[in-house]
Amino acid sequence: MARTERISLAQGSGGEPMQRLLRELIWPVFANPILARQEDQARLAFELQPGEQLAFTTDSFVVTPLQFPGGDIGSLAVQGTLNDLAVGGAVARYLSCGLIIEEGLPVALLRDLCLSLAKTARDAGVQVVTGDTKVVPRGAADGLFINTSGLGIIPAGINIGTHRLAAGDSLVVSGPIGEHGAAILASRQELAITGDLRSDCANLSPLIQTLLPNAGLHALRDMTRGGLNAVLHEFAEAAGATAVIDESAVPVRPAVQGLCELLGLDPLQLACEGRLLAVVAPDHAEHLLQCLQAHPMGQGAAIIGRLTPKRNVPVILNGLYGIERALPPVSGELLPRIC
Amino acid sequence: MARTERISLAQGSGGEPMQRLLRELIWPVFANPILARQEDQARLAFELQPGEQLAFTTDSFVVTPLQFPGGDIGSLAVQGTLNDLAVGGAVARYLSCGLIIEEGLPVALLRDLCLSLAKTARDAGVQVVTGDTKVVPRGAADGLFINTSGLGIIPAGINIGTHRLAAGDSLVVSGPIGEHGAAILASRQELAITGDLRSDCANLSPLIQTLLPNAGLHALRDMTRGGLNAVLHEFAEAAGATAVIDESAVPVRPAVQGLCELLGLDPLQLACEGRLLAVVAPDHAEHLLQCLQAHPMGQGAAIIGRLTPKRNVPVILNGLYGIERALPPVSGELLPRIC
Repeated sequence: MARTERISLAQGSGGEPMQRLLRELIWPVFANPILARQEDQARLAFELQPGEQLAFTTDSFVVTPLQFPGGDIGSLAVQGTLNDLAVGGAVARYLSCGLIIEEGLPVALLRDLCLSLAKTARDAGVQVVTGDTKVVPRGAADGLFINTSGLGIIPAGINIGTHRLAAGDSLVVSGPIGEHGAAILASRQELAITGDLRSDCANLSPLIQTLLPNAGLHALRDMTRGGLNAVLHEFAEAAGATAVIDESAVPVRPAVQGLCELLGLDPLQLACEGRLLAVVAPDHAEHLLQCLQAHPMGQGAAIIGRLTPKRNVPVILNGLYGIERALPPVSGELLPRIC
Repeated sequence: MARTERISLAQGSGGEPMQRLLRELIWPVFANPILARQEDQARLAFELQPGEQLAFTTDSFVVTPLQFPGGDIGSLAVQGTLNDLAVGGAVARYLSCGLIIEEGLPVALLRDLCLSLAKTARDAGVQVVTGDTKVVPRGAADGLFINTSGLGIIPAGINIGTHRLAAGDSLVVSGPIGEHGAAILASRQELAITGDLRSDCANLSPLIQTLLPNAGLHALRDMTRGGLNAVLHEFAEAAGATAVIDESAVPVRPAVQGLCELLGLDPLQLACEGRLLAVVAPDHAEHLLQCLQAHPMGQGAAIIGRLTPKRNVPVILNGLYGIERALPPVSGELLPRIC
């Protein structure tokens, strides 16, 4: 297909133009023997050993712009879903890819985004084995939306999740927060500071694999929509506890801090796409921190606080001079479509 | 949530308004123990016996209008994905549900559509175990898009698919064609004939289960986008054969035929969402037809033609007086967003 071509409604028709789109663009990009069978469903010769569980997750991506410093909707659609598997301790194996394309999207852009998606999947050792392509008329969607669903295996003996959270646990972040949200915002506003701001979006699985042997690890979560704030509230509620955060311990890069001050935003609310919050028994926290810092993706890790017996609010910030204040939950939407 | 409320961007924020949407609307509708764990991934204690395969499929639904005679986007999002599993011989087990909601969608409508989705899943014996909810600003999507991905088990010994197609095979449809496309079109145009036109959308799995024991069954396909035409072309190409169709044998209800004549459409191109094409060894065709006709969903079944050794075109219609003509593949998009 010519690179100057634009996607037409006919390419969602089920007929010859759609077959051509699939044959010339989609299938070559994702080429693998399972997809090549072109059935309505992928057939997986899956084997689960005793004690293993199958992990299944889904995520739709509506980020704008489609390409941003540090990534694009294709790489993000893989990383986001792989991270949702990884924080449960799963090793990802297979992905689906559902495209909703707005009529008029340049074919060259679609190819670049699909290539990015495919490369990110390949680098992570997972196969895109089934998919779906819809085209909607101009104005009925905005450019491109991507849904990915993921399948992975949770090995026997892995037991992490919100059910293990307990007052006393330490809270550890894997690196500076808010960089994805800041990069999206800056690139959308065409702010001059864009140069310093790159999305942190990344596949967290290699980092998480090094953490799983830690017997004190209770739960993991990637800090996406709503940022650290949202995960703290979710975990505090699940644990029936209050999270107390040492504000000065939360790592925030100067460029993110600067953007937030400029625009009156709170970095605690800005999304990350390659950072996690780990909750760990207090006597295992130092060891977990060392594991994180020993990995290229966790060099900026920090212990930021702990879960305490429940108080009158779910999250408390411990600021300068030891003055405590409540951190309210994210209540509005300052920055839609960051993922 | 009040029924007069409309979805706001904040409900896609990851914060408190989104938690409320999930807690008050989404989770209760899909209630099951796996979803109730509220992790980023469903954890499935899946067991595959020797010879069984896991089937995995995905589909995005962008149909407009959201509600139509015979169904809605919620029921269709389940039936479409279950059918994609069933035509491979799989027994569906689990679904994911990814919602992309346009800001301003009435909460009451969203609830009705989610209830419809949940009921259709429950009636089919499958659980919605993981999901994702995005809200995009007004104008960035049209009402509601739904992605569902499905997991099922293909029992040992099932071997159907395009690899088994062969010249000589008989082609059997399970009932009158084009009813979904016609119903969508009529409801969109507010044509007076709407009363007679209902979508055929249905979960084909119970019907397919009665066909699978037929040793001569080679392949099944639901006839969605591009209708019978698209499946005939796909199968002819996969088999390296030509499909020869007895035009008068193809069942079309009078209301669909009338609409097509009125608007100059070809019923062979109109989508079905509850009909299948079965390809079967010729000596098993009569038995398969009897199986179909014995089931409430296959009463209108008919043998419509056969695969023959490859000729100069992939699909030939055998019309009145035995005059043959080529059936060209679907080349444009007359009717976008039918599923």
